[in-house]
Amino acid sequence: MAPRWKWKGAEAKALAEPIANSVSELQLSLAKTESSGSLSSCNVLLAVEPEQAELLDRCCFGRLVLSAEKGKKWIQLSFEEAFYLLYNLKCIKIYLQGRCLEKEVDTWMYMRSKRPKFPIFFKAYSHLRSKNWVLRSGLQFGVDFVVYRHHPSLVHSEYSVLVQSGDSNRLRAWSDVHCAVRLSGSVAKTLLTLHVSGNSNKEDLNLPLCLENYTVEEHTICRWSPELSREDEIMKP
Amino acid sequence: MAPRWKWKGAEAKALAEPIANSVSELQLSLAKTESSGSLSSCNVLLAVEPEQAELLDRCCFGRLVLSAEKGKKWIQLSFEEAFYLLYNLKCIKIYLQGRCLEKEVDTWMYMRSKRPKFPIFFKAYSHLRSKNWVLRSGLQFGVDFVVYRHHPSLVHSEYSVLVQSGDSNRLRAWSDVHCAVRLSGSVAKTLLTLHVSGNSNKEDLNLPLCLENYTVEEHTICRWSPELSREDEIMKP
Repeated sequence: MAPRWKWKGAEAKALAEPIANSVSELQLSLAKTESSGSLSSCNVLLAVEPEQAELLDRCCFGRLVLSAEKGKKWIQLSFEEAFYLLYNLKCIKIYLQGRCLEKEVDTWMYMRSKRPKFPIFFKAYSHLRSKNWVLRSGLQFGVDFVVYRHHPSLVHSEYSVLVQSGDSNRLRAWSDVHCAVRLSGSVAKTLLTLHVSGNSNKEDLNLPLCLENYTVEEHTICRWSPELSREDEIMKP
Repeated sequence: MAPRWKWKGAEAKALAEPIANSVSELQLSLAKTESSGSLSSCNVLLAVEPEQAELLDRCCFGRLVLSAEKGKKWIQLSFEEAFYLLYNLKCIKIYLQGRCLEKEVDTWMYMRSKRPKFPIFFKAYSHLRSKNWVLRSGLQFGVDFVVYRHHPSLVHSEYSVLVQSGDSNRLRAWSDVHCAVRLSGSVAKTLLTLHVSGNSNKEDLNLPLCLENYTVEEHTICRWSPELSREDEIMKP
């Protein structure tokens, strides 16, 4: 499926402003001000300057939290987004109840304790994000993430992503596969499954280094229609 | 959701010809001619007279198999449909490789051996069918059955049904629930789950009598929207 740009000129705008450039700019800016985020039970609140909030939005990290404070903006990040800024981009610090978590592993362990599947989900997130895909929650489409080629204001998401690991509950029954494929099709997305595997050793999970040992297998799943798949061009509708 | 009739006058036609009456007529007719069906690995081929084929269609049992034979029609029944005609309506006989299975339990065991979940699915099927709902495969909507108030030529299906038992794989993950609810909504159906439970004793599964001990719990699942659910009528859109 070709990308569906939202307006005329959106594609040109996307080409002129690659996400990778915005992310580099964001990385420099956040590192300079030593920006810090506070952990809560399922997300991270990041305090930033107004121009950094604008940069975060351009790169699609987090959501702006409305507040009356002047000169300071609050951004709510998912665990994946926050850990990506911390571990991959090294541009934020993380606080828990007012205390700075100096070591990345402390943040890692906290997030794992709140969400046992965090390592798997983070691997999937960082796998796509590091290739400059933009990820958002796929909650409303019954998947884990939706994936955009560029900012969601320019283009519709192209893939709906299910993250699979050895003990996943999804796509086990045929009816479940049908359901996911049909829903993805009806919202013009391609279903992408990311099978994350490796690290049977539980000890390794205690360090973000375990991410190095994970492998990600990508599969798109789509409906096969005999009529549309014939070799004979004339038979095509 | 109100039933969506397919054309003007369809509701009146449905009221004038209740499914229950057609089923009684079918039952009498098939019993009289001692109609017989042959088991194959996943369905049953039933040989009938042309007027019986028409009756089967009116009651929505099986699908006509195209054949050049004159004066005889072949109907392909699912295991659930065939066993319902055999066990609940007592109007057909079942053959396996040319030999009549005199006892219902032999057919039961054969179907169970081919599809371990058959008892659960048959309980769900017969539960709704005996209340004169019409059931069809829900394959294309990622569910087990779709359910019609009357013949599919008159009305759209109202419910998409997932059959659940203790060891079901569906609706375990939240994303799966979202997926099923959103897809059902987008095709104007209500998601209905039938939880079939009972018979922890494996021995009992060897007899169709175990059906008596099953209980079926019905739940519809739908999205809760705060805006649409306020008490204050004025606030409704």
